[in-house]
Amino acid sequence: MDQINPEHNSIGWIGTGIMGVPMCGHLIRAGYRVFVFNRTKEKAGELLNKGANWCDSPVEVARRSDVVFTIVGYPDDVREVYFGKEGVFAEPVSDRIFVDMTTTEPAIAGEIYEKALACDCFSLDAPVSGGDVGAVKGELSIMVGGDKEIFDLVKPLLGLFGKNIVYQGKAGCGQHAKMCNQITVAGVMIGICENLIYCKRAGLDFHTMLRSVGSGAASSWLLDNLGPRIMEGDYNPGFFVEHFIKDMEIALDESRRMGIDLPGLELVKSLYERASALGHGRLGTQALLLALEDFCGDEKRGYKEV
Amino acid sequence: MDQINPEHNSIGWIGTGIMGVPMCGHLIRAGYRVFVFNRTKEKAGELLNKGANWCDSPVEVARRSDVVFTIVGYPDDVREVYFGKEGVFAEPVSDRIFVDMTTTEPAIAGEIYEKALACDCFSLDAPVSGGDVGAVKGELSIMVGGDKEIFDLVKPLLGLFGKNIVYQGKAGCGQHAKMCNQITVAGVMIGICENLIYCKRAGLDFHTMLRSVGSGAASSWLLDNLGPRIMEGDYNPGFFVEHFIKDMEIALDESRRMGIDLPGLELVKSLYERASALGHGRLGTQALLLALEDFCGDEKRGYKEV
Repeated sequence: MDQINPEHNSIGWIGTGIMGVPMCGHLIRAGYRVFVFNRTKEKAGELLNKGANWCDSPVEVARRSDVVFTIVGYPDDVREVYFGKEGVFAEPVSDRIFVDMTTTEPAIAGEIYEKALACDCFSLDAPVSGGDVGAVKGELSIMVGGDKEIFDLVKPLLGLFGKNIVYQGKAGCGQHAKMCNQITVAGVMIGICENLIYCKRAGLDFHTMLRSVGSGAASSWLLDNLGPRIMEGDYNPGFFVEHFIKDMEIALDESRRMGIDLPGLELVKSLYERASALGHGRLGTQALLLALEDFCGDEKRGYKEV
Repeated sequence: MDQINPEHNSIGWIGTGIMGVPMCGHLIRAGYRVFVFNRTKEKAGELLNKGANWCDSPVEVARRSDVVFTIVGYPDDVREVYFGKEGVFAEPVSDRIFVDMTTTEPAIAGEIYEKALACDCFSLDAPVSGGDVGAVKGELSIMVGGDKEIFDLVKPLLGLFGKNIVYQGKAGCGQHAKMCNQITVAGVMIGICENLIYCKRAGLDFHTMLRSVGSGAASSWLLDNLGPRIMEGDYNPGFFVEHFIKDMEIALDESRRMGIDLPGLELVKSLYERASALGHGRLGTQALLLALEDFCGDEKRGYKEV
């Protein structure tokens, strides 16, 4: 492949969740012939209605597509999609490009890369940031690892999903960059939620406090965007607690493997696990506040009543 | 006083440190007659050269000024300035306004407020954010507690120091808002420094990582501003480690008093104490990275050699 275009190339899509559906929709809108697989077929319904072709397995997707995108849930799901009995590598293929957009272990990205190379294929790891809203708008941030030439070849397709598309280095580097993102988010989240707990107890008005704190050294995207939602008692997910826990686990596993300790991330993960144990796994990451209030033994849950 | 102007009013200034000198300079430039005291007279030299009048004690400043600003170091310094043997309240005064701009305990703000009221004076607590650069430029963020009418009266003076001047509520609320700021900063700082430790170990290029992480959900003022300084090995203080420790101690004491736990802040404070124990108390807050690397048992200090 010298270039990828709707006239000559078919695209495969594996994983039609909250992110996958709108992302794959952009490919269909761009005129590509798309082959879709998902563990739960019903979730692909919207895409099939728009003209996507159903496949019964990942390997069938790989057989019928030149470029295969995957965006599934957990590292084990990625392994199953690639190395499972009906995974994309279950039959001999060649001259394919695999792009895993799941946030997963950097080591898996390396395994996929090696396996792809061994059968004259290529792969990229390309996790995203920006949530379902970013996916719908085509405004995701995409962090890419793999061979630079393959990145250049696939970049126009990634451009259908995202705005900020950055080549981070060799296979796994996309995943590492995503870990940097999530490690930072963890710290910012505890800073924000502890602020809000203090703010409430001190009797300050949240919006007035935000006028001081939200524009200087303490300012952040998350304070601006999640702060007001927390104060309104809105815990609807932009990004699920349980998925964030998965990301933090990956980052901590990688850190240990690299011989470093991240005590802040350890603490934040333990608080998110507390949120999950309280039944908040499918709430948005702002539910860290509920875990902190539980930690404080505060009987009030959330800030709705303030 | 109905209004404050250089023709009719004299201003007192107590505390001529890294913040106080440029702030007081703005008052002199605006044409005010200024009376200055500092524990170490030499540090007031620049202001005296510009025309400020020296006083031998806080009480002398109070005697000769209509509005007295104080910005000193630690809570005990504030107590000494207000309630000490030669403190501003050591002699009967009336019709004065005291504005404490030190970041200090909300309870002290309340004590000053009560004492001021009892002698027909007024007080505001008005801690700032924005560092020495903000002080020089007159672009500080100022968080104010006290009576609203007094805030309105003093606001034009505060406007000489700051841009974002917000009335936060009754006496102590300025200090509480500052605590909200510092609690948030603590979380953001650990998120950033743990990111950078991971980034380095994973072999990512910092600036490339920042292109992905610095513009989305993980973005923050501190990542943009301190991240590059850390990577260049620049630990010069914008804000001293030892002063940040003081602020975190105040926030934690207040939190305990209010019956809440802030585990993130506890952790970050302990790491900054580690930085201080390593001899980094007079470095900038980005030296949290050095404490984390020590925590990791990493023999490399800082990122200069990357």
